[in-house]
Amino acid sequence: MRVATFTIGDERRVGLVDADAGSVAPFDLSADAARAGVVALIGRAVPATLSPLPLDRVRLDAPVPRPARNIFCVGKNYHDHAHEFSRSGFDSSAAAGAVPKHPIIFSKVPETVIAHGEPIRIDPSVSAAVDYEAELAVIIGRGGRGIRAADALDHVWGYTIVNDVTARDLQGRYSQWLIGKSQDTFCPMGPFAVTRDALDLGDTVIRCLVNGELRQESNTRHLIFDVPTIIATLSAGITLQPGDVIATGTPAGVGIGFDPPRYLRAGDVVRIEIGPIGVLENRVEEIAR
Amino acid sequence: MRVATFTIGDERRVGLVDADAGSVAPFDLSADAARAGVVALIGRAVPATLSPLPLDRVRLDAPVPRPARNIFCVGKNYHDHAHEFSRSGFDSSAAAGAVPKHPIIFSKVPETVIAHGEPIRIDPSVSAAVDYEAELAVIIGRGGRGIRAADALDHVWGYTIVNDVTARDLQGRYSQWLIGKSQDTFCPMGPFAVTRDALDLGDTVIRCLVNGELRQESNTRHLIFDVPTIIATLSAGITLQPGDVIATGTPAGVGIGFDPPRYLRAGDVVRIEIGPIGVLENRVEEIAR
Repeated sequence: MRVATFTIGDERRVGLVDADAGSVAPFDLSADAARAGVVALIGRAVPATLSPLPLDRVRLDAPVPRPARNIFCVGKNYHDHAHEFSRSGFDSSAAAGAVPKHPIIFSKVPETVIAHGEPIRIDPSVSAAVDYEAELAVIIGRGGRGIRAADALDHVWGYTIVNDVTARDLQGRYSQWLIGKSQDTFCPMGPFAVTRDALDLGDTVIRCLVNGELRQESNTRHLIFDVPTIIATLSAGITLQPGDVIATGTPAGVGIGFDPPRYLRAGDVVRIEIGPIGVLENRVEEIAR
Repeated sequence: MRVATFTIGDERRVGLVDADAGSVAPFDLSADAARAGVVALIGRAVPATLSPLPLDRVRLDAPVPRPARNIFCVGKNYHDHAHEFSRSGFDSSAAAGAVPKHPIIFSKVPETVIAHGEPIRIDPSVSAAVDYEAELAVIIGRGGRGIRAADALDHVWGYTIVNDVTARDLQGRYSQWLIGKSQDTFCPMGPFAVTRDALDLGDTVIRCLVNGELRQESNTRHLIFDVPTIIATLSAGITLQPGDVIATGTPAGVGIGFDPPRYLRAGDVVRIEIGPIGVLENRVEEIAR
């Protein structure tokens, strides 16, 4: 099932996407429930759908427009990216070795989330080194504590795409990554979410293009710490909540992987493709001061 | 003004504390507004109060029982603590030097928050190195982005006490501090909050006792990065929101400051005193597995 969160008129809705027909059929949900985006579908039977609307007549919102707490993110979770990041000079954890022995988990504030098509805003007075990171993100369904890896996928509602936009200079300067990761607009999410049956974690291609040029291309099977391990690690002592979002890490090919680094500039278009989910595209704008 | 968030019967209230009389006078607020705790008072005139209740007849909640996003926390923000932590072997940022050149900011998930009197629960199957950290916490009033240090205190609604409980082994193992800081029950907060006029940031004593033994004693004037600097740093590119909580860092004397370290054990009682705010006391329990 592929699901969109969207706004039509002044009302947010959640609906079933029919990509071939180019339409979305709103679920029969209260306006209040739909405000949470796809989280409204967690822990209940799939609601009936109303008449489909053309997708180009609605404004897409992020699947989880405002997560109830910070987004969990995994750092250095593909071998090739772990190496490029450690070489970059911005990795405050590099002393521990390029490839982490345990998952590195940090967070982004929920208000960083923007939808497909909304601009990533860079502020030259704050950062001169804004970078993209294409990632598969997990949306937790059933919460829990002490979830074993073997049971972890039962706690996954579905998946979406996240661009874990990062100010590299701030990431390095502040040692802990929260500030560099949490700048306003730094979490494009979407365009849609899919339920867990619609995506094969063992073989899903993830791609990122900047201005049409392929920069990142990998497969979720190359994750150093797989989704069950991440969920088991987090939930060992932190009760996971329905609707939690976990960005699983980015493969090689980010801007700091190049010499010289290729940071995002005003006018750039970042496009992330994960087959079953769709294409998440965002243009970069500069904040005038 | 000293304010309590509390529950009486099944209803949450926010009220004005009269410590001498041992009473709390509920503000005239809707049940819905009061659910957010002292955040209900932000951005409005102080509501009228109803008849006072004896403090010992109500159950105290944390001043902000469930922050709307992760709590911002500052690491290594007192010189003496920065040194003791760097020596401990758990500091993944130690390579950059003991005393940070820029504020180190990480987060704790909102569900870590517990009230005065509620138990800190340690899980021996997850961590064998749970530590206390007495801290002054800021509660943001007016939000904003690009707040200058000179204007920062205008954005502070008030203050409370936070115990930034930390699993040292997890803090070291996972490199980024989120997991070690976000274990369930790891953010005792309270007992009350005070408005900003009631506390002198330039001269406020902070004390922590474990089982009656003085472990930490310092003064907020010893903060490496003061509250205006922290607010300016965070808000440079992250829009601060009303009700945001920022824990400002802990002075020397935490468990890892001792040789051998003195971690928390079941039955220990951690007591934090910050004069104008009150006394935050929590007993440690062990989770049976």
